[in-house]
Amino acid sequence: MANEKIPYKIYLEEKEMPTTWYNVRADMKQKPAPLLNPGTGKPMTAEELSHVFCDELVAQELNNTDRYIPIPEEIRTFYKMYRPSPLVRAYCLEEKLGTPAKIYYKFEGNNTSGSHKLNSAIAQAYYAKKQGLKGVTTETGAGQWGTALSMACSYFGLDCKVYMVKVSYEQKPFRREVMRTYGASVTPSPSTETEVGKKILAEFPGTTGSLGCAISEAVEAAVTRDGYRYVLGSVLSQVLLHQSVIGMETKAALDKYGIKPDIIIGCAGGGSNLGGLIAPFMGEKLRGEADYRFIAVEPASCPSLTRGKYVYDFCDTGKVCPLAKMYTLGSGFIPAPNHAGGLRYHGMSSILSELYDEGLLEATSVKQTDVFKAAEYFARVEGILPAPESSHAIRAAIDEALKCKETGEEKTIVFGLTGTGYFDMVAYEQFHNGTMTDYIPTDKEIAESIAKTPGIQ
Amino acid sequence: MANEKIPYKIYLEEKEMPTTWYNVRADMKQKPAPLLNPGTGKPMTAEELSHVFCDELVAQELNNTDRYIPIPEEIRTFYKMYRPSPLVRAYCLEEKLGTPAKIYYKFEGNNTSGSHKLNSAIAQAYYAKKQGLKGVTTETGAGQWGTALSMACSYFGLDCKVYMVKVSYEQKPFRREVMRTYGASVTPSPSTETEVGKKILAEFPGTTGSLGCAISEAVEAAVTRDGYRYVLGSVLSQVLLHQSVIGMETKAALDKYGIKPDIIIGCAGGGSNLGGLIAPFMGEKLRGEADYRFIAVEPASCPSLTRGKYVYDFCDTGKVCPLAKMYTLGSGFIPAPNHAGGLRYHGMSSILSELYDEGLLEATSVKQTDVFKAAEYFARVEGILPAPESSHAIRAAIDEALKCKETGEEKTIVFGLTGTGYFDMVAYEQFHNGTMTDYIPTDKEIAESIAKTPGIQ
Repeated sequence: MANEKIPYKIYLEEKEMPTTWYNVRADMKQKPAPLLNPGTGKPMTAEELSHVFCDELVAQELNNTDRYIPIPEEIRTFYKMYRPSPLVRAYCLEEKLGTPAKIYYKFEGNNTSGSHKLNSAIAQAYYAKKQGLKGVTTETGAGQWGTALSMACSYFGLDCKVYMVKVSYEQKPFRREVMRTYGASVTPSPSTETEVGKKILAEFPGTTGSLGCAISEAVEAAVTRDGYRYVLGSVLSQVLLHQSVIGMETKAALDKYGIKPDIIIGCAGGGSNLGGLIAPFMGEKLRGEADYRFIAVEPASCPSLTRGKYVYDFCDTGKVCPLAKMYTLGSGFIPAPNHAGGLRYHGMSSILSELYDEGLLEATSVKQTDVFKAAEYFARVEGILPAPESSHAIRAAIDEALKCKETGEEKTIVFGLTGTGYFDMVAYEQFHNGTMTDYIPTDKEIAESIAKTPGIQ
Repeated sequence: MANEKIPYKIYLEEKEMPTTWYNVRADMKQKPAPLLNPGTGKPMTAEELSHVFCDELVAQELNNTDRYIPIPEEIRTFYKMYRPSPLVRAYCLEEKLGTPAKIYYKFEGNNTSGSHKLNSAIAQAYYAKKQGLKGVTTETGAGQWGTALSMACSYFGLDCKVYMVKVSYEQKPFRREVMRTYGASVTPSPSTETEVGKKILAEFPGTTGSLGCAISEAVEAAVTRDGYRYVLGSVLSQVLLHQSVIGMETKAALDKYGIKPDIIIGCAGGGSNLGGLIAPFMGEKLRGEADYRFIAVEPASCPSLTRGKYVYDFCDTGKVCPLAKMYTLGSGFIPAPNHAGGLRYHGMSSILSELYDEGLLEATSVKQTDVFKAAEYFARVEGILPAPESSHAIRAAIDEALKCKETGEEKTIVFGLTGTGYFDMVAYEQFHNGTMTDYIPTDKEIAESIAKTPGIQ
């Protein structure tokens, strides 16, 4: 009966929107391991990082102590254009599944970038602008991050140079065109524009690219140009900080109706969405104020948390980036070509890696065809065509809800619906035509990939 | 200062959502002319119409008297999944234009169909289900209506058969794939599945199709099958009735903040969005309670209101439909192949035609390249990539706001942002590459098209 008071969609009012980001590191007893300089083996200093990142972002990257960091007014103004995002009660999904579970999802897809990535893109563009830079460089895989950054740069009048993983560049011409609409220049990676791109092309002439490789190119392009810095859409602690706006809004919306979740689920590639969604809830858990189950859902074809090794590794294929301690499949790992969508990064955010290592976060992996079954089911029942990435979380949420059906437990499940699949119809078409396949790397393949990565010590 | 209280986005609460549709015909002194049976020349009876449409929809089509029609509970439940749509204050656009005008837009694109079409699709599917039908047939041009109907039929478990204008079918494979995700069958039109399709193909072998032709096929497919009816996404009075939910929400949101618009602008193809958006405001004007300027914006390449003739004409190319009195370019009119997006119907809703004829509604036409200039400008400033259709309204709204800049008038402008352009990137690409062209039919072409349409009496 209390349920009847809960609307299908909970929108915060503008005045209820978060004014600060939440920095989960402040509440972690064991801090995430620092980035290391691969040359010296010592922690990266702010000065060293400032060649790659904007100064304010370097400060955020190294900030393990401040619990709340104010969101600058300019960023809050931009947030108001597309936030708050709705927290949706999945009444139709619950009814269709016949589960006693109560399912909510935080929907981040109602903006032109099509995902949560815009939350950090606008922050990073803002700090670049504030520092008086000309522009920024980045990589993009499935294209969501590149689109988000293009929009953010357009808003602040910054130049935006995107290295797009070649296979996505070719498969997703429309994503590319959206980025062009926002004035970005988009280059398929590996390219001959950079030294590292040329080297990778020489070594692997037929390569369709990888995120790790595109990162290397984007970093090189940034450090060899005046007035440019590199920005990254996931993995880094600064990105998880910005994405905490997802969790802050979710918590505020739940609190408004006195709802306490039992399980919080998110898909995990580099960890930005999951890290942001769970942040304030994890904070409560770390402070002993509440308890929740957190589940990271990753693709079976790129299972860094569930099958990777927790060691120092390079953040990129070309080894131009610092070393990060993380669950990794080896920085040379590239998911099988049949892998659709994002979640193709070889490692995992240091914050999430540490939380997982301490047993504060669970992880599971799901097969691609099972993910698309869940995606189509969800689209028909809840009316939103989900991104392949987001559908990993849908799969796990449905599975948890079906467990509740068996046990009769009325658990409250919250998951992150990170984005929409409008630019992923090639993958949906393969699914409809029955030509979509699964690929699960063997233990040997993973062990070899990890072994041959020189970053791992 | 009062402005500072108005948030970027006004969302109604669930309990504030409209519970009735508003039927503007009840307040029109001069009712729209009735549909005529082309055989007898007499008004179509309910019995005659019931072969094509569901019984409840026939009743709504013929209802010129009831001002408010309750929205059935099941439809309101579906509306709650994706409505209310936000009424957005375009603060960023105002600032960028440097206009004293206050600009608002009602954004209908935050659902997977990508447009307002879902508002009527779910209503029509509901009545079909209620009548115990097996399925429905329809046509789609740019694909928004077909997608919306696929979603609605999936929700109610109805079969959905879509005839898609051939040029769109070929240019928009992803739209087709979204419809397949929702279980619809999609056939390029003209096809050899119907007698009328075969006839049109024989007469014009190279034709890329038209909406009027796809309508003929869909109607034939409905009336020759047991348990099927035809549904239409625009033009009809029943559709404008369902779309009044846009205007009802807009008015409720404005009233909440005591805002009175001066100008209300919408793009116009068949008239469903514009008719729905202006409905309750037009009601006030008709009853002498308030005054507003209403502007219909149509493409220069398909200018039914601004250059058509107000006469009885067939609703479709194949002449299997009744005759409607409307502003028309002739039912054989097909926009030039360079015309992108929707708004390609040869006629205009009888309701809007009558209001225009009485001078209660203004109309203007805009060139395609000017429309895309406005679209890109809007995308960069307001962060939403608009559909080409919606961008006609953006163009006119910007032009009105710039007039205010000249005169210093602080007018309040409301326009309908009917949808997103995520499936229109081919057209955006043409625009970026400078290969997009304009075509304005000559007076001679229009006169000939009107003259050779036998429906015109």
